[in-house]
Amino acid sequence: GQVIVSDAATLEEQIASATAGDTILMKNGIWKDLEVKFTGEGTVEKPIILKAQTNGKVIIEGQSYIGISGKYLVVEGLTFKNGYTPTNAVISYRTSSKDFAYHCRVTQCLIENFSNPERYEADKWVEMYGKDNRFDHNALIDKRNKGVTFTVRLNNEESRENNHIIEYNYFGKRQNLGSNGGETLRIGTSHYSRTNSNSIVRKNYFESCDGELEIISNKSCGNTYQDNVFDACKGTLTMRHGERTLVENNYFLGKRKHNTGGIRVINERQTVKNNYISGLTGYRFRGALVVMNGVPNSPLNRYNQVDGAVISNNLILNSDHVQLCAGSDTERSATPINSTMSDNIFMTNTNPSLFTVYDDISGIQFEGNFVNKEENVPVENGFKSIDYQLTKNSNGLLSASKKLLKKIGFKGDVELPVSREEVGPAFYDKDTKVIGLNEGKEIHVQPGINTIIEALEMANPGDILLLEGNEEYVLTKTAYIHFPVTLKGEGKATILSEKSVAFQLENEADLELNHLVIDAKNAPDQSGNCIVSTSRYSMNDNYIFKTLDCEIRNLNINHTFNFLKIYPSTMADTVLIENSQFDQVTGSILALDKEVDDLGMYNAEYVIIQQSSFKNIDNTIADVYRGGTDESTFGPNVEVLDCTFENVGHSKRNKEQSSLTFHGVQKLEIDECHWVKSAPLKLFLTNGEPISEIKNCTFQETDKVVANSDKYSFENIKMINK
Amino acid sequence: GQVIVSDAATLEEQIASATAGDTILMKNGIWKDLEVKFTGEGTVEKPIILKAQTNGKVIIEGQSYIGISGKYLVVEGLTFKNGYTPTNAVISYRTSSKDFAYHCRVTQCLIENFSNPERYEADKWVEMYGKDNRFDHNALIDKRNKGVTFTVRLNNEESRENNHIIEYNYFGKRQNLGSNGGETLRIGTSHYSRTNSNSIVRKNYFESCDGELEIISNKSCGNTYQDNVFDACKGTLTMRHGERTLVENNYFLGKRKHNTGGIRVINERQTVKNNYISGLTGYRFRGALVVMNGVPNSPLNRYNQVDGAVISNNLILNSDHVQLCAGSDTERSATPINSTMSDNIFMTNTNPSLFTVYDDISGIQFEGNFVNKEENVPVENGFKSIDYQLTKNSNGLLSASKKLLKKIGFKGDVELPVSREEVGPAFYDKDTKVIGLNEGKEIHVQPGINTIIEALEMANPGDILLLEGNEEYVLTKTAYIHFPVTLKGEGKATILSEKSVAFQLENEADLELNHLVIDAKNAPDQSGNCIVSTSRYSMNDNYIFKTLDCEIRNLNINHTFNFLKIYPSTMADTVLIENSQFDQVTGSILALDKEVDDLGMYNAEYVIIQQSSFKNIDNTIADVYRGGTDESTFGPNVEVLDCTFENVGHSKRNKEQSSLTFHGVQKLEIDECHWVKSAPLKLFLTNGEPISEIKNCTFQETDKVVANSDKYSFENIKMINK
Ligand SMILES: [Ca+2]
Ligand SMILES: [Ca+2]
Repeated sequence: GQVIVSDAATLEEQIASATAGDTILMKNGIWKDLEVKFTGEGTVEKPIILKAQTNGKVIIEGQSYIGISGKYLVVEGLTFKNGYTPTNAVISYRTSSKDFAYHCRVTQCLIENFSNPERYEADKWVEMYGKDNRFDHNALIDKRNKGVTFTVRLNNEESRENNHIIEYNYFGKRQNLGSNGGETLRIGTSHYSRTNSNSIVRKNYFESCDGELEIISNKSCGNTYQDNVFDACKGTLTMRHGERTLVENNYFLGKRKHNTGGIRVINERQTVKNNYISGLTGYRFRGALVVMNGVPNSPLNRYNQVDGAVISNNLILNSDHVQLCAGSDTERSATPINSTMSDNIFMTNTNPSLFTVYDDISGIQFEGNFVNKEENVPVENGFKSIDYQLTKNSNGLLSASKKLLKKIGFKGDVELPVSREEVGPAFYDKDTKVIGLNEGKEIHVQPGINTIIEALEMANPGDILLLEGNEEYVLTKTAYIHFPVTLKGEGKATILSEKSVAFQLENEADLELNHLVIDAKNAPDQSGNCIVSTSRYSMNDNYIFKTLDCEIRNLNINHTFNFLKIYPSTMADTVLIENSQFDQVTGSILALDKEVDDLGMYNAEYVIIQQSSFKNIDNTIADVYRGGTDESTFGPNVEVLDCTFENVGHSKRNKEQSSLTFHGVQKLEIDECHWVKSAPLKLFLTNGEPISEIKNCTFQETDKVVANSDKYSFENIKMINK
Repeated sequence: GQVIVSDAATLEEQIASATAGDTILMKNGIWKDLEVKFTGEGTVEKPIILKAQTNGKVIIEGQSYIGISGKYLVVEGLTFKNGYTPTNAVISYRTSSKDFAYHCRVTQCLIENFSNPERYEADKWVEMYGKDNRFDHNALIDKRNKGVTFTVRLNNEESRENNHIIEYNYFGKRQNLGSNGGETLRIGTSHYSRTNSNSIVRKNYFESCDGELEIISNKSCGNTYQDNVFDACKGTLTMRHGERTLVENNYFLGKRKHNTGGIRVINERQTVKNNYISGLTGYRFRGALVVMNGVPNSPLNRYNQVDGAVISNNLILNSDHVQLCAGSDTERSATPINSTMSDNIFMTNTNPSLFTVYDDISGIQFEGNFVNKEENVPVENGFKSIDYQLTKNSNGLLSASKKLLKKIGFKGDVELPVSREEVGPAFYDKDTKVIGLNEGKEIHVQPGINTIIEALEMANPGDILLLEGNEEYVLTKTAYIHFPVTLKGEGKATILSEKSVAFQLENEADLELNHLVIDAKNAPDQSGNCIVSTSRYSMNDNYIFKTLDCEIRNLNINHTFNFLKIYPSTMADTVLIENSQFDQVTGSILALDKEVDDLGMYNAEYVIIQQSSFKNIDNTIADVYRGGTDESTFGPNVEVLDCTFENVGHSKRNKEQSSLTFHGVQKLEIDECHWVKSAPLKLFLTNGEPISEIKNCTFQETDKVVANSDKYSFENIKMINK
């Protein structure tokens, strides 16, 4: 029969009494702090169904989760948002460590930002256990905290050789986590990676899944990834562990976004065929196609040698990097063997050095591949150089000619195997827009005491607060920022803060300070003040902080007065300082060094400092820290351009005794900078083959660069009086 | 006239229109987020009064504060609780940086735990500016965050030579802050310390003001401290800066509480007379009477030489330490000059070495002092040795005979100059009790999944959850602890946690784990798990965590599995491990090392580990860290007694490569401990003359102690096979 329930207790009763063929409808509305164990025994013809009264109208909030165990159970139409799971998963295909789901299905469900507010508190949104289960037409959007979004677990006998099917789902935006644990989909773990999972992942649409290096982390045997689309995703489909994976007819659309990647091959007997790879910019492990070196007799959690890989009939178009024997080092010394790379088209006008070969590639047989003339090739034989000839086809996709496609045996047309419209729950609109900086309205703010705070209370995301020129704005309280907002002087307005923190970024904030004077002379007489602070608590949303055309001064009432003060478990997407002058600061300007556990986490993806001057700064201008040897992340990326540093870094409290310190930065560019009577620049290069370029700089009465390695470039540098 | 107002807008209007003689009554009830600027011009006969309708019945909550400026204004009867100030003060005798109060009075007001939840976010409760103001019959109770409770400011001309009177107030409990900034009262700052303040602090009652070394920090000239009582306060009345202070007829009742102190003399022309000092245990800067060395030509923020001090007619009874030339070192080399110490009675049966002399005391003239025979004396002349003769007098206070009192010219009787009943607002009950561990009722908890969490939801502070012997209690969610609670096995009950954190201490929690097995074998496969965590956020209330008679095992599913995981801005009053066994832990047991700014902050006051064994622990057993050279705090204090450590500390992730590390611990005792195949014990002794004793220990196949100094004692130690 069919019943409709409107509270948790009745739901529990109805589940307990349901038999094959029953449908339990959850009443439309908000369900708060809901803990459901959906158990039962349906049949193939008569499943037991737990369903929203109207799909998309049952909203589960707060501390909620659902577990499923038994047979032939269906969950349909539920939405999880405004909360997070108090357990380890939101939807779990088990109800205890002994009770699993079989032949069960979750469909037409949405999980949207159901993220633990603690950025590095790990959980999963979906954990599949048991066998023969299906997950289809669901949407998983905006997971912000650590932990794989969707995972298939194999840690018990009942969950192996499972034949799960994961299809027609929309895996939406996942922001850069800045740590390992930002995968969108994982099947297995290293412990059980030599076990057959036999899961099928097909016809899913992945969009902006930027969590970390691995969009998908395959960690078991016998899995299939077919007909999926990866739309502007940073990272790769990685065959991290496990063998006999089939990766076929997937479409990778990089759209030239930074760090977009394709397919990474590790382990034995992997098949990569008929994939379409276009517009990917990623290098090294984020390449369009990456074949790695392994570790001889690798332990379970390291890298198995590539053996018997078949990489055929793929299109790699307008992408920047194909990496062979990637990761070669003293540990990863086992080069690929018994492998073939045949009948692929490599055609790009974006990088003339498409191929990088890190080690001996004699174990890969190359045959029947095409490459455009302008490109390098990894070996002489097996590549035919032809004219570049890509054009957009009738499906709007870049393609080689049909003739050439036919020559390499590419099956079907160049067209997406699944459309964005076909995936996810029917009720979910994928095009909801998030408002960013300067996308709102302008608000005039009167000078005076705390008028900025009053204006903030009236403002909406994206708004621009306009401050009058040559007037004073006093803050006797901290101004808390809860969404993207700009403070802009019309003519230079002066902000005078009397509080230990002038502006505090709360979760979901972005802040732009534009054309302002910030004078800290009235700050309280205590150490540790700052102008801008992150939340002291976790911020699970990455923030943007821009300082444009500002004068910042008199941060010196007491020691350790910082410009920006950040806390652990916060991550900036971008910190930008441009065309600004800083004078008299007893602390630091950008100390982005608060993830000290050396697990590969860090505090800012892009740090850009340009056309600015820094004078009489006691501590550091920038300290960007990423410690440890983890290889899951992209950044930090740092640019320091056209700046001067005078009398910087000489405080005894400056632990690094440097003017700028970059530890573990992956890409560093310093150009046209001038040091005067300052502490030196300090570099600590770690793993990940960081790129560090310093050029066109002068160091006057300043010590030379201090570095742990000489693997940085140093061009056109002048040392004066030292 | 008199009006009654019931909302903030009307209050503002009435203040704006009030004239001399008007009374504005605030209606009884809760006022939330109230920001008041009380300005006006009253006269000496006709003040303007802002008053509670009924004293004590107007409760101001949330983000609230009051500023006062003008003349002859009175604030009466208000209560601040359940909130904190968004500015730098709760009650300020100014309304802007230019508008101050004169002849104003605050009376019959209560501020109770109106503390910023951020422990180290500094603010003040009362800031006096202007001149001729009075603060009387108020109570300031339980300030938990950083920042002086009550302060007189001199940072503008209008606030100097102020003749403020602070009297008949109750300065109640202030917990140990574990940092500088925990003073209860401060007059001036080092910047203005050579300025006359001429403030009078009299007839106040200080009780359990334990915030830091300075109960009172005098930092200006010409102040008077008279007829105050200090009841069981850790710390001292410190003449930190400024000269010509009169400290007269104050009563210090130590009650033999740990670290209770008396009067500390620094600077020129200080007078200390007719004070009663009894039962104080503090040593070094917390002595019953401390005369310090100064710094030659001291900068404002260091120590002026003692010159012309008069210390006469005082009683120092049953106290442990009188410290002369205290703080003598290469910097503080200027000994006291032109000073006299005369006609005092030093009589104690608690320590035969009452006097410690750190440097040349020829600049102090001793005359007419009495000391009991059993005691040492600092010099031969000026002390008369007599029989110990203290008895309780009719006021219940320990006293010498009237005859002897007369001999030294002690004025008046030995009796409290002000009683606890006479101070504070009439409506406030000073005897409200806080409920601690094991003071509640017993609750039986059924075995099963999350039954502990269900029981916690029903429990009250102090309750004891009783778990059945030989049964299993599974946690699939974190159990959050919000108040003092005990989990106690009746026979050994087993707790199995499936979550990254089993128990999390929230602010105001204490936890006792008693007679339990905690088995972590089902924890999630990720790094960084723990059994007990503090809040990740600030805890402004010090917590207690006890582990008694427990077996803890299998904390090893992944790396860095800790027993206790703490976060910055948390402080344990006590962490105790007793009669417990730990086996297989990939992380640490007690890593109390999260205050890394080297500003003298730390994470635990008392750490006691006894009668316990630790086997196969990858990281540290205890890492207690207090960095920097600050001298404002008491701890940490550590005892490790009768323990064994086997195969401990060998993880490559163990940064210190030690089994136990004590950095900056002020008092350390290690007795009857046995190391086997473990990493060494590591000591880092810092300033504050730490006491470190290691005795009766064996180190088998274990390296010797690693230390930065040899100023620790090492008795009866055996090294075996190493
Ligand atoms: Ca990963
Ligand atoms: Ca202090």
